Amino acid sequence: MNAPTEISVPGRVAVLGMGLIGGSFALALSAADAEATIVGHDPDAEGLAAALERGVIHEAAGSAEAAVAGAGLVVLAMPVDLIPAACRALAGHVHPNAAVTDVGSAKLDVVTAGEEAFGGRFVGGHPMAGSERHGIDAADPELFGGAWWILTPTEQTSSDAYARVRALVGSLKALPVALDPSVHDALIARLSHVPQLAASALVSTAAAGGDREELLGLAAGGFRDVTRIAASSPELWVAILRSNRSAVLEGLGGLRDSLADLEEMIAAERWDDVREYLAAARTARLELFARPDPPGEPVTLAIPVQDRPGLLAEVTTAAGRLGANIEDLRIIHSTEGGQGRLEMVIAGAERAAALAEELRGLGYRVEELPPGVESYG
Amino acid sequence: MNAPTEISVPGRVAVLGMGLIGGSFALALSAADAEATIVGHDPDAEGLAAALERGVIHEAAGSAEAAVAGAGLVVLAMPVDLIPAACRALAGHVHPNAAVTDVGSAKLDVVTAGEEAFGGRFVGGHPMAGSERHGIDAADPELFGGAWWILTPTEQTSSDAYARVRALVGSLKALPVALDPSVHDALIARLSHVPQLAASALVSTAAAGGDREELLGLAAGGFRDVTRIAASSPELWVAILRSNRSAVLEGLGGLRDSLADLEEMIAAERWDDVREYLAAARTARLELFARPDPPGEPVTLAIPVQDRPGLLAEVTTAAGRLGANIEDLRIIHSTEGGQGRLEMVIAGAERAAALAEELRGLGYRVEELPPGVESYG
Repeated sequence: MNAPTEISVPGRVAVLGMGLIGGSFALALSAADAEATIVGHDPDAEGLAAALERGVIHEAAGSAEAAVAGAGLVVLAMPVDLIPAACRALAGHVHPNAAVTDVGSAKLDVVTAGEEAFGGRFVGGHPMAGSERHGIDAADPELFGGAWWILTPTEQTSSDAYARVRALVGSLKALPVALDPSVHDALIARLSHVPQLAASALVSTAAAGGDREELLGLAAGGFRDVTRIAASSPELWVAILRSNRSAVLEGLGGLRDSLADLEEMIAAERWDDVREYLAAARTARLELFARPDPPGEPVTLAIPVQDRPGLLAEVTTAAGRLGANIEDLRIIHSTEGGQGRLEMVIAGAERAAALAEELRGLGYRVEELPPGVESYG
Repeated sequence: MNAPTEISVPGRVAVLGMGLIGGSFALALSAADAEATIVGHDPDAEGLAAALERGVIHEAAGSAEAAVAGAGLVVLAMPVDLIPAACRALAGHVHPNAAVTDVGSAKLDVVTAGEEAFGGRFVGGHPMAGSERHGIDAADPELFGGAWWILTPTEQTSSDAYARVRALVGSLKALPVALDPSVHDALIARLSHVPQLAASALVSTAAAGGDREELLGLAAGGFRDVTRIAASSPELWVAILRSNRSAVLEGLGGLRDSLADLEEMIAAERWDDVREYLAAARTARLELFARPDPPGEPVTLAIPVQDRPGLLAEVTTAAGRLGANIEDLRIIHSTEGGQGRLEMVIAGAERAAALAEELRGLGYRVEELPPGVESYG
């Protein structure tokens, strides 16, 4: 007989960093799980006291080490450039059974440091939600609702830690999706970090024109939209850019080339090329935020496996390759030890079948459970 | 005795071009003035028929020449790159007393052609309102409410034509502001045309990354905002870019330099410089859309003048130099011929006094009428 592993939110959760994301995480978790005890820490004593006073956290710890003591889950929500050092500092203090995750917006450096400190129990994470506001006062329990939350499992990641973090993310109403840390960093550079720099550069260019400053008030809605994120915190962004420097430089190079192409077309009055360029961007933009196709009926795939390192990375990578989104995922352990089972829910029978075939090609035994049947366990 | 000139909307108004702006203009004018007869024309017979059917216009004319016959006001609302040719084609057809204006988003070429065709009766205009939607179906009578509407009088502009166009713009609930055509073009390149190209380039860069396309769906709100305008009509934008080519190239050069600076700072890990750059952009962005200071009590300045060319440009330029916004402006003609009077309302006694002094320095006789007194006429 198998018994499902406990994948619900662990009782005691340490949140390190009481900024917008840490505070919003704590509020969302309290809303999702009334039983959770959330202990917070922040080197800014005033912010920490405010978080406790506002009921964002249940307990305020005087140090990061004290906060993580006895916690079943540790969430690193400090500025992203401080996470590697925090991992090193906490390596001997986190409970051996605890899962550790983070919310940093760059992942390769963080995951490397996290795995050095915590091994397979570290699961990198990045909620794709934010605001140009920041600090505990902007914390919002709804911040993650409907937002993507990228998780970056690797070959080292323990299936159990992954399943726990994934369930947690789902309980906050976010949409978990798994990506390789390097793929994440390159993608986010282009979707977030480079647009951020472009917004700042557009404001600088507009303001540096030498015309009377009040004329900038003539800016219409388009400029307002394009530059809204330029009002974000410079401190926060320097931390992000430091942590994703090489991917950001690559992305900036791409933007520079793209703008140079446009400049050349306009200078040479190659208007057909300009039109084609703008039309391609328009199509990409419209498709980007188009409603996705209906996902189709959920099909569960069950894979008997050892809880061995590398499994999750292999499975999620295969799913990604085929465009099959993993709607749900859990690990069923055998109480007799040895053989366990990974079950995941894929939307759409066609994609589920394609993924099953792909995984069989990789040497897994895969059962397709009929729609509605979630487990034979 | 003086009698105020008729500055209300002339009875018969020709609108050439039934796109988003032409259609919205017609709807807004109908709402503002139930007496106006709006005759429309568009080379696209289907769009023209739709405009008539939807009640956007009262009459559909089979040609531009037929539309302008007998009209007291002509509004050129075709794509901006077609306006110069339209001016040349209509030069002999517009009534000698009619004022002619346009809504093109680049002004130097348009104003040059307009003045060649219509002399001082041409008043360049650019409503700072739009939408990524386009066409008559997106027409909206509220499109201009509270939006800036730039007018570009020159030394040649007749005060009378300017006052009529200005009153019209005000009746649509837009906020008129006067700028030199070249200043307009440089400013709008930086506030609108370059941001538009940057948005398209950001989408292209993101989409060209070689990752699976569906990952772009991970884009968060920031990317959504920054790239919203990339969904605008390529046709429309090619027309705009053609018409403002040199200012756009200059603006793109400014953006390129600004991004290159950032790239260099990040490559060299000059994080303090990056922070300073982002902080300056943040401050500029926050100031840009901050609520303006309360404008202060309105003061009327009255200037006895010949209705001579150059007056308006001189007065509006002086006002702009001092940051004094002209809240209202009208021309009072003497019924006995000769001497007339220009009255304008300036918000705030201090700014009004400064402007009065400046104008006296330019050789004008300026009376400051006490708040509440609008005219001695």
